[in-house]
Amino acid sequence: MPRKMEVGGAARDGAERPIYAPTPATKARRKDRMTYDKAAVHAVLDEGYVCHVAYVDEAGQARVHPTNFWRIGEAIYLHGGHKSGLMKAIARGERLSIAVTLEDGLVLAKSAFAHSMNYRCVMLYGRGRLLSDEEKYVVVPSFIDKVEAGRSALVRPLNAKEAAATAIAEVPLVEVGLKSRSGPPGDPGADRDWPVWTGVVPVR
Amino acid sequence: MPRKMEVGGAARDGAERPIYAPTPATKARRKDRMTYDKAAVHAVLDEGYVCHVAYVDEAGQARVHPTNFWRIGEAIYLHGGHKSGLMKAIARGERLSIAVTLEDGLVLAKSAFAHSMNYRCVMLYGRGRLLSDEEKYVVVPSFIDKVEAGRSALVRPLNAKEAAATAIAEVPLVEVGLKSRSGPPGDPGADRDWPVWTGVVPVR
Repeated sequence: MPRKMEVGGAARDGAERPIYAPTPATKARRKDRMTYDKAAVHAVLDEGYVCHVAYVDEAGQARVHPTNFWRIGEAIYLHGGHKSGLMKAIARGERLSIAVTLEDGLVLAKSAFAHSMNYRCVMLYGRGRLLSDEEKYVVVPSFIDKVEAGRSALVRPLNAKEAAATAIAEVPLVEVGLKSRSGPPGDPGADRDWPVWTGVVPVR
Repeated sequence: MPRKMEVGGAARDGAERPIYAPTPATKARRKDRMTYDKAAVHAVLDEGYVCHVAYVDEAGQARVHPTNFWRIGEAIYLHGGHKSGLMKAIARGERLSIAVTLEDGLVLAKSAFAHSMNYRCVMLYGRGRLLSDEEKYVVVPSFIDKVEAGRSALVRPLNAKEAAATAIAEVPLVEVGLKSRSGPPGDPGADRDWPVWTGVVPVR
């Protein structure tokens, strides 16, 4: 087995920072729906399995790419093919915009206009770093354990050929915010007596 | 009520096209996981409530924006604030990259490497068009009926103030593909006797 590598970013330095500092990219237009609380961000990242990553491709056009991810400390990890557009963009140093969205419920209101959705969405910006093959052995077990607790000790481990075949990128949690909506419909009082059922219906 | 508007794009011309024509953006590197079948694309769009839209912002950087959407014929509709980055990008004519991803199951394999996910993801590229207020009355009921069949006839309808307050964009279904994975883990024969349970676990 390779030696233990330093992964997980700033979490390893022991500093306690309860929030992420807002930046122009993560500043909210609706402040009531935004938080920068680290624990709340981590909880969403640990519940989600898929993130959507946007990047600018070589033709200068936007691309969105859904992919699995997992968190270790103050970084998330993405994997993919070395020749995928996403991994090539990360290798070029493109700035990424990443969303992890959990759909909590459909909000059925009195008026068409007040219909909404309850959700939690982590928005993350930053550049990624491609891991060395040695580092891959350190981070892959956390992905398997996210899928099923304790499973990484039970499966046939990554081998050298497989490590070489997979690109894994680390994106540090620095520019991060959590946008969410929860609770009942926000119907105005004038619609109160409109005769239709309202409430929140879980998605799927 | 405003007069009936022409919405829904090409579906109204009566032409039967069973597939979307692949383009450089929608061409698959893994052909076995890609389809351009219209009915399959429509089914995913009608099952999903959230899409992730990527665009290039005014600073030239990628942004991803999760938002609700709905389909009518050969177009999808997105709504948002007039001053949101997404709606401003659509007004500028930016090319969009849109993903609608349904997570079907976690694929637990014998080896760490063979772990995967079953999913269906519609990838859509194109430019949007902002609707007039009159057109909004025509497309909003379909969104309410997607949330709950028949509900648009029961709720208090959109009024002029609300129509003016919401931006709605139409994106035609032209450059479209559906990427998916289904079925059991793809473990190589050499791992067959590794003593760990394998299978597909539904997400959430």
